[in-house]
Amino acid sequence: MDIQQYMQDTGRKARAASRQMAAASTAAKNQALCVIAASLRARAPELLAANARDLEQARADGLEPAMIDRLTLSAKGIESMASGLEQIAALPDPIGEISNVKRRPSGIQVGHMRVPLGVIGIIYEARPNVTADAAGLCIKSGNAAILRGGKEALHCNQAIAACVREGLETAGLPAAGVQIIETTDRAAVGELITMPEFVDVIVPRGGKGLIERISRDARVPVIKHLDGNCHVYLDDEADAAKAIPIVENSKTQRYGTCNTAESLLVARSRAAELLPRVGAMLAGRGVEMRGCAESLAILGAAGIAGARLVPAQESDWSEEYLAPVIAIKVVDGLDAAIDHINRYSSQHTDAIVSENYSKAMRFLREVDSASVMINASTRFADGFEYGLGAEIGISTDKIHARGPVGLEGLTSQKWVVFGNGEVRA
Amino acid sequence: MDIQQYMQDTGRKARAASRQMAAASTAAKNQALCVIAASLRARAPELLAANARDLEQARADGLEPAMIDRLTLSAKGIESMASGLEQIAALPDPIGEISNVKRRPSGIQVGHMRVPLGVIGIIYEARPNVTADAAGLCIKSGNAAILRGGKEALHCNQAIAACVREGLETAGLPAAGVQIIETTDRAAVGELITMPEFVDVIVPRGGKGLIERISRDARVPVIKHLDGNCHVYLDDEADAAKAIPIVENSKTQRYGTCNTAESLLVARSRAAELLPRVGAMLAGRGVEMRGCAESLAILGAAGIAGARLVPAQESDWSEEYLAPVIAIKVVDGLDAAIDHINRYSSQHTDAIVSENYSKAMRFLREVDSASVMINASTRFADGFEYGLGAEIGISTDKIHARGPVGLEGLTSQKWVVFGNGEVRA
Repeated sequence: MDIQQYMQDTGRKARAASRQMAAASTAAKNQALCVIAASLRARAPELLAANARDLEQARADGLEPAMIDRLTLSAKGIESMASGLEQIAALPDPIGEISNVKRRPSGIQVGHMRVPLGVIGIIYEARPNVTADAAGLCIKSGNAAILRGGKEALHCNQAIAACVREGLETAGLPAAGVQIIETTDRAAVGELITMPEFVDVIVPRGGKGLIERISRDARVPVIKHLDGNCHVYLDDEADAAKAIPIVENSKTQRYGTCNTAESLLVARSRAAELLPRVGAMLAGRGVEMRGCAESLAILGAAGIAGARLVPAQESDWSEEYLAPVIAIKVVDGLDAAIDHINRYSSQHTDAIVSENYSKAMRFLREVDSASVMINASTRFADGFEYGLGAEIGISTDKIHARGPVGLEGLTSQKWVVFGNGEVRA
Repeated sequence: MDIQQYMQDTGRKARAASRQMAAASTAAKNQALCVIAASLRARAPELLAANARDLEQARADGLEPAMIDRLTLSAKGIESMASGLEQIAALPDPIGEISNVKRRPSGIQVGHMRVPLGVIGIIYEARPNVTADAAGLCIKSGNAAILRGGKEALHCNQAIAACVREGLETAGLPAAGVQIIETTDRAAVGELITMPEFVDVIVPRGGKGLIERISRDARVPVIKHLDGNCHVYLDDEADAAKAIPIVENSKTQRYGTCNTAESLLVARSRAAELLPRVGAMLAGRGVEMRGCAESLAILGAAGIAGARLVPAQESDWSEEYLAPVIAIKVVDGLDAAIDHINRYSSQHTDAIVSENYSKAMRFLREVDSASVMINASTRFADGFEYGLGAEIGISTDKIHARGPVGLEGLTSQKWVVFGNGEVRA
């Protein structure tokens, strides 16, 4: 197979389909989504059989249990994909919305219209549910999609793609509105990210190494998510009744998610009071504490049963543990906290706990992260919690979309001018 | 000089300054802008002397008259830079604005805050006025700037940079908030566009070749402006009283600007009536017409005195003439016009002239360009005409900023969460 030729053909078809997707009515897009959902349910046995083939191969290849777990599709998983698509159908259609129209002295009226990005290439791990989610979000936002899932999920992805095709065709939309890459050759990714004539944006999901490589080599814009080194800062004026539950939830609700807190900063004036309470809570949950000298002295002196206290290395301030481990540092106060966060944070999500209005508002403004929070758990940084209705990922970029990316992040705005024969003087 | 070391130092200083620029008060930023304006006026003799040095060298190097013209700074030009900065000071400060706050079922309130992009690298031709304009826009939008102007303008840029520094320091802002690259070595550009740790976005201005090269080699996002192949489409239901002035203004008001129309499409049902009138107007202004066979037959039969009629080649449909030349094509109607534009347009600005509501609205939605207009001259696609107050360029990209880029295009939005101790269930 000539991979370059195959990808060029795929790109050309996507570009052509994107025009029809952009012009599609809300009714047609919603019909497609609902037919795909029905088709996923109707073809559940086929999907499970395809998944079983993938799993058999994956086990034969000695895949790690965590990857096997993500690759596995259950009946419940199929229902979840189907109802996710119905939820996307229920969201307002962002495309074509005209806003901010203003009359200018020349007589013209100028405003914005929300439009699709065009063709979106999505590169992701061997997680079959992403195939349905990504297809749904791209269809609703009027984009054409080229999906490249992990090669271990190919059979299952092909089965899901058949449902997607049925939905598109039933609704009178082009089948090439959503294409999956049918080759497992890695060269296909290299082609996908270097076809600016056919692809408008790449959304990579997966490990940091993969995303860094794609960002480096891409010739098209990339909406990327690197790591989540999220901070909670307990200010001089933190309310302890809020501080402990926020640290607990931010760190321990789930360890493997990108919006989990990995670092705790405590204002010096409150360290002796708050750290023993935080430490007891963390020790009770089995969380290892990697502290600065000052925090370790306080935690050590508190004599917390079962506390695992480890001196922090410089590298701990940057680490995304994704595990029951937290870095702890005592800081002078707000300025030092902001400096530390802006230096070490991955610009994902950072929170302050404080009752002081001006300090909280300074934190909100000066911490340069995609999500900045006052008196709330970092775990809220999520498309569903923010009310986006769906999420294709969380961006740690600064331009275009920051933080959770929903339908709107897959769109752009063009200028529209309503005239009545005006010419420029 | 070690260019890489020099650029790394410049980048590091810019990154540090960007924190202070982001946190600067509106009053401090406006004070800086007004002091720079006063300083430009006060140091006018120095600026003119520096410019004279640049011009002398440029003439000795045999620069083209058009480039000499752009390089030349007059007393009027200095006043225009100064008053431009005062106009930027008068604009609302976009930074820190919180919008779209919504309460979620969890109890948190989620919204957006407008924030600077960080460090902006601007690469431009030998036009001293751009140095002041770009500095002003970056200061007001809370960004740090690294400016790389054409090497022919170095002395004048250094003199302008001294005024900028005076303004920043008087207002208590870091001098490194705006840096100009003091070396003329081209390797500096290569470094500037490949330092993602220090530079958040690159804005290149200049020739198409330069911009394509920068886009290809950059390791940071680029807000770019390629060419402007703008169309006017005269629909079946065009009002002739609007059509002729719109074509006249779009094509002939200025020939060298990117929002000038380069292609005219005419619906077949109106070609015999409209083309002779359009042709007479264009011939009267000395505009060469490169037409399809059908349009040439009509124009030829009309016997217009002095008309220069030339058969169009395939390449004419893509051409940005920047000259008194226009491509003309007769099309079946709206669908053919949209197809032609989406195929050949540079996605800059395209206009329809029509009295039919549904056709005009379809054109508005389906033409995939940064500015799409109904019954108005393409020449309106401009930051000032759109009410942005200032413009750093016009983007032909699809993500982030499309069309004229003002202060808002130099910003992004982060998520802000107002909580009261909420944790995720």
